[in-house]
Amino acid sequence: MRPLTLDSLNPNALKVEYAVRGELAIKAEEYREQLKAGSHALPFDRVISSNIGNPQQKGLDQPPITFTRQVAALMEWPALAELAPDAFPKDVIARAQELSREIGSIGAYSHSQGVPLIRKNVAQFIQNRDGYPSDPAHIFLTGGASAGVSLFLSLLINSPRAGILIPIPQYPLYTATIAQFNGVAIPYLLDEYSGWSTSVESIEEALEKAQKEGTVPKALVIINPGNPTGALLDETTQEKLVKLCEKFSLVLLADEVYQANLHQPKEHPFTSFKKVVKNLNSPVPLVSFHSISKGVSGECGRRGGYFECTNISDEILALIYKMVSVGLCPPLSGQIGVDSMVRPPREGEESYVLWKKETDTIHSDLASRTKTMAARLNALPGVSCVDSPGALYLFPQIKLSDKAQEAARKAGKEPDAFYSLALLDETGICVVPGSGFGQKEGEWHYRLTCLCPGVDEYVGKLEGFHRRWVQKYGEQ
Amino acid sequence: MRPLTLDSLNPNALKVEYAVRGELAIKAEEYREQLKAGSHALPFDRVISSNIGNPQQKGLDQPPITFTRQVAALMEWPALAELAPDAFPKDVIARAQELSREIGSIGAYSHSQGVPLIRKNVAQFIQNRDGYPSDPAHIFLTGGASAGVSLFLSLLINSPRAGILIPIPQYPLYTATIAQFNGVAIPYLLDEYSGWSTSVESIEEALEKAQKEGTVPKALVIINPGNPTGALLDETTQEKLVKLCEKFSLVLLADEVYQANLHQPKEHPFTSFKKVVKNLNSPVPLVSFHSISKGVSGECGRRGGYFECTNISDEILALIYKMVSVGLCPPLSGQIGVDSMVRPPREGEESYVLWKKETDTIHSDLASRTKTMAARLNALPGVSCVDSPGALYLFPQIKLSDKAQEAARKAGKEPDAFYSLALLDETGICVVPGSGFGQKEGEWHYRLTCLCPGVDEYVGKLEGFHRRWVQKYGEQ
Repeated sequence: MRPLTLDSLNPNALKVEYAVRGELAIKAEEYREQLKAGSHALPFDRVISSNIGNPQQKGLDQPPITFTRQVAALMEWPALAELAPDAFPKDVIARAQELSREIGSIGAYSHSQGVPLIRKNVAQFIQNRDGYPSDPAHIFLTGGASAGVSLFLSLLINSPRAGILIPIPQYPLYTATIAQFNGVAIPYLLDEYSGWSTSVESIEEALEKAQKEGTVPKALVIINPGNPTGALLDETTQEKLVKLCEKFSLVLLADEVYQANLHQPKEHPFTSFKKVVKNLNSPVPLVSFHSISKGVSGECGRRGGYFECTNISDEILALIYKMVSVGLCPPLSGQIGVDSMVRPPREGEESYVLWKKETDTIHSDLASRTKTMAARLNALPGVSCVDSPGALYLFPQIKLSDKAQEAARKAGKEPDAFYSLALLDETGICVVPGSGFGQKEGEWHYRLTCLCPGVDEYVGKLEGFHRRWVQKYGEQ
Repeated sequence: MRPLTLDSLNPNALKVEYAVRGELAIKAEEYREQLKAGSHALPFDRVISSNIGNPQQKGLDQPPITFTRQVAALMEWPALAELAPDAFPKDVIARAQELSREIGSIGAYSHSQGVPLIRKNVAQFIQNRDGYPSDPAHIFLTGGASAGVSLFLSLLINSPRAGILIPIPQYPLYTATIAQFNGVAIPYLLDEYSGWSTSVESIEEALEKAQKEGTVPKALVIINPGNPTGALLDETTQEKLVKLCEKFSLVLLADEVYQANLHQPKEHPFTSFKKVVKNLNSPVPLVSFHSISKGVSGECGRRGGYFECTNISDEILALIYKMVSVGLCPPLSGQIGVDSMVRPPREGEESYVLWKKETDTIHSDLASRTKTMAARLNALPGVSCVDSPGALYLFPQIKLSDKAQEAARKAGKEPDAFYSLALLDETGICVVPGSGFGQKEGEWHYRLTCLCPGVDEYVGKLEGFHRRWVQKYGEQ
């Protein structure tokens, strides 16, 4: 028989790239295995995975919200409410019993769109946030935001000419998924020199260029707060973006998974696109994605999230339902995680004080770490870093000398990948090269998370590495 | 702006059909809501969802395996081991601690391929089952078997001429996914009159016919034990199938999710395709799918499963890794569910006795229910039903009179859908029409699960309905 070879497989799959878990992450995993096996051959004693927004991972160990886990433990084994009644606050027991009455066993498939009660609670959360009604029938619970994004891109890409506008830099889920479904990515540049702002004019230029090249634009992806940039849109820009979607008949895909990660909430608040679309009474079809993996929840491993559809017809909602039903249902652990996120303990309830303390700590730690890291990175020669007001990341720009670029070329690597590999090899810190997110020609970046607890030691390592690098390769 | 309409979306999505959660399931959900709201207008007081193999759903209430849930509760909230030490058997606490040491928090993303320790345990389980080594690097944990099947079909369908051989009747995941990725389904008929056996000759005929029509066959799907048929392959047939794959250079996709649901294990044992391929020392690329949703585990809501790749090159494994990494990782609740399935308590451990009792009960209840239901359905006029030796279903054939077929035509329904809708309307029992799985032209069936606990009342309703039907429409 002929063996199965790459060239006999779907060529779109070969085009997919996803740097967040790419070459560097794989190498970091190998280093971790070596350390675990007791190796002393490496110049570091632990690997720090700053490549991915994964707050609860080993080594970062952001503690989960106790309330969420207590409810989940009771849902796993309801007998605990009687076997260990004193272990649980009363509001936790009540919440678990309410969910159990609705769901039954979390070992059963739920409604493919998600448990109706939980969708109702999500709708209430959205309504409280925006001041506009939300319909549970327009909400789909998902196994994380990525699953929803992938579904929508697979629906919107109806030909190899279908184009999706994506920011540069972007979270590479978008380029990966567009490649997988054989569409065209239409990049628009964010402006680093005004805090990674979004320019409506540059989107319009990108659109017109794409149309001239025969691409049919279908949707505009906005990531707000930004990933990897951490930037927040102001409402005026959001209004312009909605009107742009009206003008070009675009679906607006609003990736709002970092909506609760705000480090400067007064100067840079979050406004949902749902609210803006409703304020404008706009007919723009909007899909807004949210997740339990980020925010203060950080429950990446549960795989939970939702998307809300606005201005999407019933027949398209029925199509979406059909498509998600083939995958049966999102994980129940993720669904009950969504419930805990949108219905946290309220003031006066037994769990409230602890919940408040835990979430306040996560917010303030992240804000102060982000600020410190940005300041110290900015102080390095040839490094400039926007002090990000949101999300979990920094995306510093690094100037690389001709000598460094030449060395990268010889190694067959992009210069920023070459820098990041050296950083991993010397310090055990795994970041993602800017080329994985896209960047202006001739500029180099990397993305790192602001989740590492020992910020002094962590930034100290980054600084030490960078200074050695400059010594070796010189400044640009 | 132009509104978003169905005809501007991916035409492949419009072609997708998935009857298991289709028209009937949606109607059943509406009836359930009516009953919940206190309606007395329906001729039944509860809806029985026999359309889907979902053992733990409300109304069926197959209890989860206590061991699995105790481990999961401790993983959700590890403090319980100290807060309520007497609530947990010692082996459960030890297991949870072992998993925690490896995983850390289940709120963190894991390795995209699945937690290494759990993959190692899966490999050991496979090795114990087959007597051949299994490599954890060739195992991918998934969010249920469907996710893995969908991934593989998306890779194998490399052009609109790419063909996938599927049994008729089949689990409609296959036709749905092939439509989604715009491939060609190449149907081969199972033989109802010899217990839904698989004929190698009929597959070869289907292959040759497809090739003549310009289709390029890529893979052979085998569901063993069968869904919806419950049939088990004998080893001789399996060997012939492997050789057929060699001859035609086909990837063998072995859906083996019902491998633990055996009602007549002596007469109809299960042999994995991995073992057959190894016995023959065959080079056939094999992907075998397993799941925690079925078997005695029945943990559908966790979304857990795995696939093992045999004779798949490292470069293709790397491609698969890349594709799954875009989705980050399978749900941790599903992954630890897989661990409990492949590493149940052992004789002598504290949890063993209860585990044995629980699993024995599930096996014997299912076997006796299947036998009773098949016998009583067979006794009905115009109904014939293979007494299924495996899986969770029966797939009775119903003869429908010309009058019934005429009434169906007038209602714009397939005759078996018309029958199934009437069954739902009169009794609240939701089944899936045979047309959703495929069947021989002019024959009619439905699929129902054998999970309903009160078998007398349940089958009584089916019998009563069928007799009224025959009275109304006559025998064929």
